[in-house]
Amino acid sequence: MKGIAILGFGNIGSGVADLIEKNKSIIEKAVSDTVEIKYLVDLRDFPDSPYADKIVHDLTPVLSDPEVSVVVETMGGSHPAYEFSLAIMEAGKSVVTSNKEVVANFGTELLAAAGKNGVSYCFEASVGGGIPIIRAFKTSLLSDGVVDICGILNGTTNYILTQMKENGTPFADALAEAQRLGYAEPDPSADIDAIDTQRKTCILCALATGQLVNPENIHTKTLRNVSTDDIAGAEKADAVIKLIGRATVREDGKVNLSAKPSMVRKSNPLATIRDVYNGIYVKTALTGDLMFYGRGAGKFPTASAVVSDVINVLTGADQRLTPWTRAEADYIAPADACVTERYLRVPADVAAEANKLFADATKLSPTEFLCVAETEASFLAKVAPLAPEAIYDLIG
Amino acid sequence: MKGIAILGFGNIGSGVADLIEKNKSIIEKAVSDTVEIKYLVDLRDFPDSPYADKIVHDLTPVLSDPEVSVVVETMGGSHPAYEFSLAIMEAGKSVVTSNKEVVANFGTELLAAAGKNGVSYCFEASVGGGIPIIRAFKTSLLSDGVVDICGILNGTTNYILTQMKENGTPFADALAEAQRLGYAEPDPSADIDAIDTQRKTCILCALATGQLVNPENIHTKTLRNVSTDDIAGAEKADAVIKLIGRATVREDGKVNLSAKPSMVRKSNPLATIRDVYNGIYVKTALTGDLMFYGRGAGKFPTASAVVSDVINVLTGADQRLTPWTRAEADYIAPADACVTERYLRVPADVAAEANKLFADATKLSPTEFLCVAETEASFLAKVAPLAPEAIYDLIG
Repeated sequence: MKGIAILGFGNIGSGVADLIEKNKSIIEKAVSDTVEIKYLVDLRDFPDSPYADKIVHDLTPVLSDPEVSVVVETMGGSHPAYEFSLAIMEAGKSVVTSNKEVVANFGTELLAAAGKNGVSYCFEASVGGGIPIIRAFKTSLLSDGVVDICGILNGTTNYILTQMKENGTPFADALAEAQRLGYAEPDPSADIDAIDTQRKTCILCALATGQLVNPENIHTKTLRNVSTDDIAGAEKADAVIKLIGRATVREDGKVNLSAKPSMVRKSNPLATIRDVYNGIYVKTALTGDLMFYGRGAGKFPTASAVVSDVINVLTGADQRLTPWTRAEADYIAPADACVTERYLRVPADVAAEANKLFADATKLSPTEFLCVAETEASFLAKVAPLAPEAIYDLIG
Repeated sequence: MKGIAILGFGNIGSGVADLIEKNKSIIEKAVSDTVEIKYLVDLRDFPDSPYADKIVHDLTPVLSDPEVSVVVETMGGSHPAYEFSLAIMEAGKSVVTSNKEVVANFGTELLAAAGKNGVSYCFEASVGGGIPIIRAFKTSLLSDGVVDICGILNGTTNYILTQMKENGTPFADALAEAQRLGYAEPDPSADIDAIDTQRKTCILCALATGQLVNPENIHTKTLRNVSTDDIAGAEKADAVIKLIGRATVREDGKVNLSAKPSMVRKSNPLATIRDVYNGIYVKTALTGDLMFYGRGAGKFPTASAVVSDVINVLTGADQRLTPWTRAEADYIAPADACVTERYLRVPADVAAEANKLFADATKLSPTEFLCVAETEASFLAKVAPLAPEAIYDLIG
């Protein structure tokens, strides 16, 4: 018998439990053994739950039960998820998580602990919800060289941007609607300030390069300043504003990393991704362009990704990652070195001056320009005296 | 040491050899052992190739060499690829193939042989080239229920359709251009008569349902009859013509299967897939909509998929498939039971009659109609007297 424990009996944790129960026969066939949820670890009691008799309030019985071979961590947050995961792996049990925060902050240490103890540490559900993007990196792009990752990694903000674009809804109203629908939290800052996108970008970069950067060191911009004028400007540029997490491997071996609202040309498949969907574009040396698309969040897509990890661990088919190293401080190229085309909008009273400064640019209107690619440092120095109203990177 | 043999030293086989040599250190790190190409089996000699000393003309040394643990089959065709693959697995070695024909025709027997001999039979490169779609089914959708697969599975025909749509090129000229660029074979019938799409649809259906149908039983239509009028008609319907392979699991447990030119609404992400790219949309019970996009063919995308299988086999991380069963004759629902919206174009002299018959339809022009969903049998019976110029399923 293969015993499973689940840490955190919230939305995702209960989805995982339901899914394991519902698909028990399929899972047992794949695993060639019986499978049982033995413990649900949560500080709360759930007297009305069908799993009430499995609730325990601390980790001790899980650690000491030799029948438990895999533990699902759906607690969220870095602590105590990090300490619990280490203790579980020290006890010789594999960990499967949906918690991007702990992977982005402590992936290096957690993968090292898995390697040391001969167990798996899996996090398919941490990026892209039900989209099997982590496994694509772990098993399919093994001998390929990933050179660019560009993704819509947060469903909440993509919903907000879709409402703004398609219905002309102002940002604040679109956010309120996302909260009403349960897509956004009462405190929405992790989503709309791009912290969630930052963490996921950090994880994807580590999968591609083997180096984990500090997520706070990723160049990050909030969505709060995206205006309906910006949405209209994107339309003139034949582009769409998306919150993009991006990791680009440069020729000098460093990476450009960003998590910020950007304009995506309509010819790019990412531009067509609406509503709460996610899309992750990956460019590799051999395979070329790949894109993965699907629901990036939600109870069952996420639970399905968790359960696929559980099955792979139990069948012995998890392709274990080589542990990451912590990136040196200078591994991230300075944001101001990033060379790209940009959208620029300036106040009407400096339009003539902007026209002179950006003679090479495509004029979208008297005050709007698509400026030819140059470094951010040089661009910002040029535009500073104009007090620009909006600047966006343009992704082709 | 892990020995590898490659059967068929053509375009894909030589790409696999080059890729293994080029990425040897990455592969050896993943495998935790040295890796060596020991044999290239081909009837021809390649005196000028760097691999000349590894060329052998029959399978005997491969079968008897205990150092060979995995054999790559890139011969194409059903025979002798089928017999060779069986012999290799009987000798206790795993097989990795890019050959969709043999998988579509003999996947049941080949997976059974793998199971019996405790080895792997892998075919990631058989569908979608470098897109990791097979592994998504094998490892990620394990406890999910796949209900619909809808794919642009052939790059050559998607190139032709893109040229027809974007440049107004007639079919014959677009085909000639595809041949000039090396996208289409001198005898292009496997691509343009949808045989290739039919085989890939058959493989995807088997992955989703565990049942392999006879590929010839899939309702299949050639691309040869797609006219520039049809392309213009699609535009009026706010849709795009694509060669679509589709497998839908019906509520009665049977499947609808087709491989034919269809109209795809522009709001569907598949409509945006241009040129030689492939896209595969998958709808599942839990995860919802997923889409995978990338280069569906070409030497290096395909070789990269083959090598990813080789690595997974050598690390022991291949998630082996439960062997398929051969579907009963009535597993495929009759094509005429398929209920869908349809595009219809009729000769001008019967326009008035068509208007009466399809009063509920959306009129696109005096002779063009978007007809409401009904079964194909009832639809065809109605339109037969009109001698219609074109009929296309409409995919939303």
